[in-house]
Amino acid sequence: MKYNFGAGPGKLAKEVLEEASKAITNFNNTGLSILEISHRSQYFMDVVDEAESLVRDLLEVPETHDIIFLQGGASTQFAMVPMNLLPPDGFAAYLDTGVWANKAIQEAKRFGEVVVVGSSINANYNFLPRDFKVSSNVAYFHYTSNNTIYGTAFSFTPEVTVPLVCDMSSDIFSRRIDVSKYNLIYAGAQKNAGPAGLTIVIIKKGILGHVKRVIPFIFDYRLHIENKSMYNTPAVYAIYVAMLNFRWLTRKGGVAAIELENNAKAALLYREIDDNPLFVGTARTEDRSRMNVTFTMVTAGLEQEFLNFSRDRYIIGIEGHRSTGGFRVSLYNAVTLQDVEVLVSAMREFSTQKEHEIRYSAMHGG
Amino acid sequence: MKYNFGAGPGKLAKEVLEEASKAITNFNNTGLSILEISHRSQYFMDVVDEAESLVRDLLEVPETHDIIFLQGGASTQFAMVPMNLLPPDGFAAYLDTGVWANKAIQEAKRFGEVVVVGSSINANYNFLPRDFKVSSNVAYFHYTSNNTIYGTAFSFTPEVTVPLVCDMSSDIFSRRIDVSKYNLIYAGAQKNAGPAGLTIVIIKKGILGHVKRVIPFIFDYRLHIENKSMYNTPAVYAIYVAMLNFRWLTRKGGVAAIELENNAKAALLYREIDDNPLFVGTARTEDRSRMNVTFTMVTAGLEQEFLNFSRDRYIIGIEGHRSTGGFRVSLYNAVTLQDVEVLVSAMREFSTQKEHEIRYSAMHGG
Repeated sequence: MKYNFGAGPGKLAKEVLEEASKAITNFNNTGLSILEISHRSQYFMDVVDEAESLVRDLLEVPETHDIIFLQGGASTQFAMVPMNLLPPDGFAAYLDTGVWANKAIQEAKRFGEVVVVGSSINANYNFLPRDFKVSSNVAYFHYTSNNTIYGTAFSFTPEVTVPLVCDMSSDIFSRRIDVSKYNLIYAGAQKNAGPAGLTIVIIKKGILGHVKRVIPFIFDYRLHIENKSMYNTPAVYAIYVAMLNFRWLTRKGGVAAIELENNAKAALLYREIDDNPLFVGTARTEDRSRMNVTFTMVTAGLEQEFLNFSRDRYIIGIEGHRSTGGFRVSLYNAVTLQDVEVLVSAMREFSTQKEHEIRYSAMHGG
Repeated sequence: MKYNFGAGPGKLAKEVLEEASKAITNFNNTGLSILEISHRSQYFMDVVDEAESLVRDLLEVPETHDIIFLQGGASTQFAMVPMNLLPPDGFAAYLDTGVWANKAIQEAKRFGEVVVVGSSINANYNFLPRDFKVSSNVAYFHYTSNNTIYGTAFSFTPEVTVPLVCDMSSDIFSRRIDVSKYNLIYAGAQKNAGPAGLTIVIIKKGILGHVKRVIPFIFDYRLHIENKSMYNTPAVYAIYVAMLNFRWLTRKGGVAAIELENNAKAALLYREIDDNPLFVGTARTEDRSRMNVTFTMVTAGLEQEFLNFSRDRYIIGIEGHRSTGGFRVSLYNAVTLQDVEVLVSAMREFSTQKEHEIRYSAMHGG
């Protein structure tokens, strides 16, 4: 048993993993592995149907929107979104809130004009630009709801009057959202939804087919929608595990219930960071993410010692991203409040120990 | 226990599945699931390195070629190949040997001029065109080495003087190949290599970057090569299971050993088809595939009865593709000679039973 706060692929619930493991040797008592059944078998069609229906219920996706399961991660969506939605002579507005937002921008530039309406790059992305203006003639406005590396997140939907496109890779299913406000939502699954190798895309009906550009079949959303995520062989196992995970989330009370838990987990950790003299948060307070909590140490040079101290207590995955340093604690849905309590205790214990060492050293002139 | 002759995702060896199942709850005694470790952790870097090195050994891939693991299946390669290799004002030669070859052709047409140098569509693809001519000014010649639906396969590499590109999705790792003859080989993993959701691409060094076209980052092979299949989060679990499968194949003696087994399996089944008065093969004899054996019944109307008869003997996955009817038996690497013996016995038993029924019926005027 480890306390896994890794940034992704992230922790999954034990009961999900146990069922996922069983299906590898004997799927639904068929005597077959989920890995060796046809994706066109009734067995698997049922899995896809259930996965889609659970996503629809969990996120309250209205009938105005389609749900598809693709491969290739959010990075593939960085290209598919402008390919399908940005006219060659059109403009798209993007918000630059981190490395991933920036990658989406660079990819979109290969398809048309991109207007970066706001950026926090000069503050190493430690806040979210809020005073940006989006011109009404853009094809869409794209933003990243949660920035894993920097620990910032939109707790609200930005108010714009143009079609909204959002990369929700790292906070989908963690909080309630109003899907009807969006033209397109996409998310790599490997944080809150399931294993790596799966991408969930939610698309408003009627928005496709208006761009004059030759779109390769495989990158045309319409074919994936028409074929109910079966245009080509899908990522069978990743869809299956995501479905198990959606069942688990539903049993837990759905997104509203997990949002309360996620709020409590984040509040506990941020309180410790703010109260503990040894640690300091890196993201601007009002933009703090409930999924990825980033902080550093006030006293430099103790980082590795704290990592070791934590590892001895089976706490793993808290190193900051290589571009920011410090610490990053990811609080995805499967991380429990108890996990966070263990971490908070370790932070407190470590800090008290260091305080004693400093006092002792001062008293004895060490 | 079932005798699984499904066309794909195909059968995997029991020992591979057992280890794959264990890694879902406890990967390499880390106390973590393979699904919840970082793809940038040393654990997983080792998996990717080993997978690549096993592919290199198994297929004797020379140092002149790179090996990468991608997502999106062969259908994504249908687009990535011309995107990266077909100049906008250039020509590519394609051989039309089935539905999948045809899909590759339709996708390539979105990027440049395609010359279909040969086709067996008018014979429902039951043979491989052999008398085709490839002009020396094409960018490359593309073919499909094994046609799963029709049961045809190239047992040799076509002799052309232009760069060779091959879709080996359904027979890679089943027989020895001379990789040095190819500029690019791609294969969806879900037949002989591993689970669905993974694509293996082998690319000759120096052939990229010569096409004047804006290639989206995510579809540029160079970035995947430079980043050793880690340009974005890869299909972690699919790569892991493929690696286990490559280890299994290596223990069995590698591709040369499995090729002998595959020859024996196919020979046994084709002999039965040719000897048994009830069945008839559909592919032209010299073009018969050792991976997918297609046949029909001489006496019409008994198909469903034979499927039921087989199912009672735990034989599954032998229905023909919906576009051809009849039967298709897939003999991927994990299918054993003993599995084929069970099927052959069932064919013999069924045919003898039918013969008796016919005689009895004739004798008693039924």
